Amino acid sequence: MSGQEAGDIEEAADREGQSMRDEALGAAASLGEFVAGSAWEDIPPELRHAAKRSILNHLGCALGVARDPAVTAALRVMQGCAGAPVATVVGQGVKLDPMSAAFVNAVASNLLDYDDTHLDTVIHPAAPVVPAVLALAEQRGLSGAAVLHAFLLGGEVECRIGNAVSPGHYARGWHITSTCGAFGAAAAAARLLGLDAAQAGHAIGIAASQAAGIVENLPTAAKNVGVGNAARLGMLAALFAEQGYQAAPLAIEGPLGWARATGDDADLGAILGELGLRWEIGRNTFKPYPAGIVFHAVIDACLQLAVELGVAPEAIAQVTVAGDALLLTRGDRVVRNARDARVSIHHSAALGFVRGRAGVADFEAAAVQDPALAAFRAKVVAVEDPGLPRGAARVRVLLLDGQEAEALVIDPRGSAGQPLTDAELEAKFRDNAALGGFEEQATAQIAAVWALEEAPDVRELMRLLA
Amino acid sequence: MSGQEAGDIEEAADREGQSMRDEALGAAASLGEFVAGSAWEDIPPELRHAAKRSILNHLGCALGVARDPAVTAALRVMQGCAGAPVATVVGQGVKLDPMSAAFVNAVASNLLDYDDTHLDTVIHPAAPVVPAVLALAEQRGLSGAAVLHAFLLGGEVECRIGNAVSPGHYARGWHITSTCGAFGAAAAAARLLGLDAAQAGHAIGIAASQAAGIVENLPTAAKNVGVGNAARLGMLAALFAEQGYQAAPLAIEGPLGWARATGDDADLGAILGELGLRWEIGRNTFKPYPAGIVFHAVIDACLQLAVELGVAPEAIAQVTVAGDALLLTRGDRVVRNARDARVSIHHSAALGFVRGRAGVADFEAAAVQDPALAAFRAKVVAVEDPGLPRGAARVRVLLLDGQEAEALVIDPRGSAGQPLTDAELEAKFRDNAALGGFEEQATAQIAAVWALEEAPDVRELMRLLA
Repeated sequence: MSGQEAGDIEEAADREGQSMRDEALGAAASLGEFVAGSAWEDIPPELRHAAKRSILNHLGCALGVARDPAVTAALRVMQGCAGAPVATVVGQGVKLDPMSAAFVNAVASNLLDYDDTHLDTVIHPAAPVVPAVLALAEQRGLSGAAVLHAFLLGGEVECRIGNAVSPGHYARGWHITSTCGAFGAAAAAARLLGLDAAQAGHAIGIAASQAAGIVENLPTAAKNVGVGNAARLGMLAALFAEQGYQAAPLAIEGPLGWARATGDDADLGAILGELGLRWEIGRNTFKPYPAGIVFHAVIDACLQLAVELGVAPEAIAQVTVAGDALLLTRGDRVVRNARDARVSIHHSAALGFVRGRAGVADFEAAAVQDPALAAFRAKVVAVEDPGLPRGAARVRVLLLDGQEAEALVIDPRGSAGQPLTDAELEAKFRDNAALGGFEEQATAQIAAVWALEEAPDVRELMRLLA
Repeated sequence: MSGQEAGDIEEAADREGQSMRDEALGAAASLGEFVAGSAWEDIPPELRHAAKRSILNHLGCALGVARDPAVTAALRVMQGCAGAPVATVVGQGVKLDPMSAAFVNAVASNLLDYDDTHLDTVIHPAAPVVPAVLALAEQRGLSGAAVLHAFLLGGEVECRIGNAVSPGHYARGWHITSTCGAFGAAAAAARLLGLDAAQAGHAIGIAASQAAGIVENLPTAAKNVGVGNAARLGMLAALFAEQGYQAAPLAIEGPLGWARATGDDADLGAILGELGLRWEIGRNTFKPYPAGIVFHAVIDACLQLAVELGVAPEAIAQVTVAGDALLLTRGDRVVRNARDARVSIHHSAALGFVRGRAGVADFEAAAVQDPALAAFRAKVVAVEDPGLPRGAARVRVLLLDGQEAEALVIDPRGSAGQPLTDAELEAKFRDNAALGGFEEQATAQIAAVWALEEAPDVRELMRLLA
């Protein structure tokens, strides 16, 4: 916009009391300075690599569900109102306008909750941020480095604001990936649009008027709408800030601001402390199994015992799984459908011994009804062991011949203590790509993500994802 | 969508635990039955007429600010991603896709808070709902009666959900027009799309994952983004419900649902009591002055005294305005800019005596700096009178010659006790139309709104508003 027009909006804003002048610098403005002022040269190599890992994991999850009716329905809705097709919808062979494409890609990548986890907040950081970044970058022909940098900045803002209101925010009913995701997408989009510090702060403050999404709706497709909106509306916030729209200086932490309205006093130290020095987004982790994260230790222990024992499932008399109260509360249940299977101690253990794997298909309806798995689930007993840390599991096996064996897993695969290796992330990507029907493209897609830092134009990657 | 596809999504939903089956009927589903089942023949004539009044007032407000930079900036942002141009943007000479047009029209109609008020909730009911209704109806060539009916149903859902969480919701920092507006737009759009009762319930439940907007941002343009989103995202909720997306049965009132997440236990009686018998939207009121609603009694009393006394402002020595504590807290202030003027006892009184009117221009920067108004503001004294009801004012005038006069206004013009007549609403519309540069079209536009009930296609009206 022209300087004259910006002046006009400011005047109109002032007429309506829409001015930020003479106010102290709030959290949004401080984050805006961080987002606009960060230099790519200052981002350490391990963080750059972490960004590629997040994006690789994110794209695999989206490819895996490309044929899911929830994703194709989202695509149909967006096609009904989408603008110029300049941004790729992953795995769909079509483009939409950037906001619409970001919506569908966010829905897809998070659909099975198989994506990534920032454990302190239980935010899935990539789902709202990466789609906004890729869509804008594709539209404008920006570089891979710009994409990685914008993702890191957006993910950082997202996780820090999440920290500032955790654990009350989620516990009170806010779907934190959707709510904090809007801030992250706004910050990332602000960076890609080249907004100055003040505009970037306004983009983040405008997101405070758009952050929504409730836990009650998590078992339904309404959840996916919330996640898609986070990506789309975050981008919208930045586009409005670019056109001169402003937000209140204390939009996040003010007396009638977002944090208090949602029930928390924002912990400003969590938002602003050591900004640019300590990176929350560097703590992002990736799930090896599409199941609740507390069941990962159960799966790992059973996979390990199955290999050690080398016996047929029929040779096993009983499996006793011990864990803390949360594991038992969530996971000791009758398994009637896929939803139950994803949060079942019994199904997790059965997969380890009967199938020796725990992929997407192993939790779906056909697996639930598999007689071998059903028979094995009946052999599994869950017991509480208050001495075990959260997320750990001890599994004891009794064979029909009287032999016994035991395995203890404290840090399951994929946790911060035992992160997936690059090779494991690649394998997960290939599995997902195969599920969606893209196995032939997987090698090139993986290579393009690893090479993002040197890519002069992100459109090369997007072409491979179409 | 085909039955097969709906079945697929339901199966996918079930796989993910996204089923509503076997659950009790919640508030959203009950509202869905109301919205889908309401018959136009059962809507009494006075309510039909009330709907026309709301729409007339709403459209006038949007026309009045058609050249405001906040509106033209919103149009620019939306043009950057808008789809097929099938829905008119009021007063802009362009069309956008329905969601984008609804966004801009909602922003415009509410920009000056000069639109309508449901006093119990302080919701501006029309801003989020009418734009969604008109955009969808124009796209599909629906009748004027369908528009009126959908507005009434959407406005009813919006105000009832607002009642269920008032007054805590707004007091805690939620901009209730934006949050509850999303429910209203979803309900209205569901009706226009012809969704069945279950789908309409899901649309309203999906809105629970989209409702956002905070009071802290009200003095900024971020507020307008929230209002625009309410219209756009409400429509989106209905489009997703049409494609088979579902919401949780207790999305509104559940333990981790929208009401509790925002801090309230929803009053279900307020949502569902006498549904279809008692109409909250019938209590919508219209502002005669673009100022805070508690200042309307001050303006009325001063206008009345100015006529009675018939003297020049210079003949007045002092004006004493008495009101309750709220009036004084909000309005006894130094006037430095338009924001102050809109909530100033002193400026309100000065307008009554100096200008004999209180229109949009009389609160803008030029009026604030008008020496005659500034001099008169210095003669005004505010005093508390705890005996006066909220919204009332007693004004006492002392002339230089010692003469005294007094006026008491309990129910100001535009309040429920003294609603604007149709003629006054028409005059307000003409004033607004003139401000936006549309005086020549005003007569035809007014006639088209009054004739909506018989209009076979709403496109006639929309053509006049282009």
